[in-house]
Amino acid sequence: MMSSASSPPFLVTMGEPAGIGGEILLKAWGRLRKSGPAFAAVDNPSRLTGLANLIGEDTPLREIGRPEEAASVFSGALPVIPIDLPRPPVPGTIDPENAPAVRDSIEQAVALTLSGEAAAVVTNPIHKLAQYRDGFEFPGHTEFLAHLAGTGTEPVMMLASERLRVVPVTRHISLKEALARLNEDLVAETISITAKALTTDFGIEHPRIAVAGLNPHAGEGGAMGREEIELLKPVVDRCNREGLRVLGPLSPDTMFHDAARGTYDAAVCMYHDQALIPVKTLDFDRAVNVTLGLPFIRTSPDHGTALDLAGTGTARETSLVSAIETAAAMAENRQKATALA
Amino acid sequence: MMSSASSPPFLVTMGEPAGIGGEILLKAWGRLRKSGPAFAAVDNPSRLTGLANLIGEDTPLREIGRPEEAASVFSGALPVIPIDLPRPPVPGTIDPENAPAVRDSIEQAVALTLSGEAAAVVTNPIHKLAQYRDGFEFPGHTEFLAHLAGTGTEPVMMLASERLRVVPVTRHISLKEALARLNEDLVAETISITAKALTTDFGIEHPRIAVAGLNPHAGEGGAMGREEIELLKPVVDRCNREGLRVLGPLSPDTMFHDAARGTYDAAVCMYHDQALIPVKTLDFDRAVNVTLGLPFIRTSPDHGTALDLAGTGTARETSLVSAIETAAAMAENRQKATALA
Repeated sequence: MMSSASSPPFLVTMGEPAGIGGEILLKAWGRLRKSGPAFAAVDNPSRLTGLANLIGEDTPLREIGRPEEAASVFSGALPVIPIDLPRPPVPGTIDPENAPAVRDSIEQAVALTLSGEAAAVVTNPIHKLAQYRDGFEFPGHTEFLAHLAGTGTEPVMMLASERLRVVPVTRHISLKEALARLNEDLVAETISITAKALTTDFGIEHPRIAVAGLNPHAGEGGAMGREEIELLKPVVDRCNREGLRVLGPLSPDTMFHDAARGTYDAAVCMYHDQALIPVKTLDFDRAVNVTLGLPFIRTSPDHGTALDLAGTGTARETSLVSAIETAAAMAENRQKATALA
Repeated sequence: MMSSASSPPFLVTMGEPAGIGGEILLKAWGRLRKSGPAFAAVDNPSRLTGLANLIGEDTPLREIGRPEEAASVFSGALPVIPIDLPRPPVPGTIDPENAPAVRDSIEQAVALTLSGEAAAVVTNPIHKLAQYRDGFEFPGHTEFLAHLAGTGTEPVMMLASERLRVVPVTRHISLKEALARLNEDLVAETISITAKALTTDFGIEHPRIAVAGLNPHAGEGGAMGREEIELLKPVVDRCNREGLRVLGPLSPDTMFHDAARGTYDAAVCMYHDQALIPVKTLDFDRAVNVTLGLPFIRTSPDHGTALDLAGTGTARETSLVSAIETAAAMAENRQKATALA
């Protein structure tokens, strides 16, 4: 997947510097330097140099001032838009003094993408607790990005792998709270944002969306829960009346096997694990987190900071590489969609 | 997998006669007639003959009086312990007059197994609604079997495939009700029954059991739900103190991928879909339903009556064959365990 010379590059944020973000960044450059897509890191050059030495990755760096400089240097060196980092990070050990720099990297990447200088933000994982302790006021990365983007609506999280795309209607809340929060508008809005993204960013003209039931066997006609009858079927009908192609509510346990997955382009799920269990069971290392409903493209690897692995040289870059490639494919589709509009 | 000549045969119940049970029975005999394990149907011979003609399966039948006669005839004909059926079933159409015969088949199979004449009961799917309308007072098949067996405790359902064994703590109730029903004793009892069955019926001397969290990321230290802290961790600790090998509570979305599954022999899950989504996503056609905690071995194919497929000749016998083979393997392990005890 070669990014065309004319398209702006992708920016990879630093993420938690004590985690595996730096290592998978270095390895991802090694994997993509020849084929592209070209990207630049928004990171601290000296910590990357130190890390490269530590884990024995031979990665030349090149500091750049603007994203547009990345493409020409990418095959020979990892382009880095430098940010300050108060203290040299120790792999595996959170340093409170470095917490603000994590957000600084994200803020710069978002600003450069909103201005059109970069094509997408690919975020390395942050450590939520370290951020909370530093006064971070958002439930997670995604909500922070929505805040930076100034969107009024809540963003939607998609997990995408080659075999399955899932979108949970509720996310990082307890299962009990998820049940309490589900309502017709929330489900309908998630379906609508998903459908739009499948068209704009995934190049699917008339996407088919499968809606999962909430209960075993999708309630089995009301015998095991009534949310399918009272909440989900009306939403599905409403979406179909509005011209979308929506199936369901489907029995959650029989909608993710090989043959079933061929009947839809994305599954809208009611809670975190209903969405994440199937995609991670199928494609643990290759699933990419895609944020829908932002004014820019944002992807991220589907794993955490893995503090226990940091500095060992054993972290796998597969998911970050997928995240960069997915961002590139989305940017290309979005460009086509814009050209057609 | 050849059942030894000395072991009693396995009994396959009729299930709903308007469903696919008969068809997959005929096909399963074709698949197993040479290699075994030998089984007998507890079914209506004339409906099986009619069905064989309809779908073009050339299956000779042999009526037998007792299970012990099955082994010697099995390679040449499908042995059938005959039951009465008031009316010739029409594939795909439930006939209320045939509802009692469905239970009759189950009752006979259970009686013959409890008496030691048969080694296990393999049940074809029943149609719950048809049974409810006929005064059936049990939530499902499994509870009916527990009643026939006279067990005081509630049976436990395991879904087993080659790649994964899962045991849901709560089963066929709404997700909301599942949350309300979870408690320490129920989880502990499920773990304990699972551990015993893994040893007795699956031949695993010191089984490792993984306990799934209830909430996203297993609650992430209480930030997304407190059931892991207040309910599950204490149960896991208690079980380990009692000498079991129990892991968890684990993050539900990261415990079912290829590498993770290697760390345990069975996963105890909190609700139906948490257990069934991963196993059906991985092994849709080959998962077998195993009932633990009964005084006899009971397996069943992991699908329903599929009324829409009945009579078309397209139903797949894979899961019934797996159910028979699993029952045979369990019987062999149980025999060994008994011999050692």
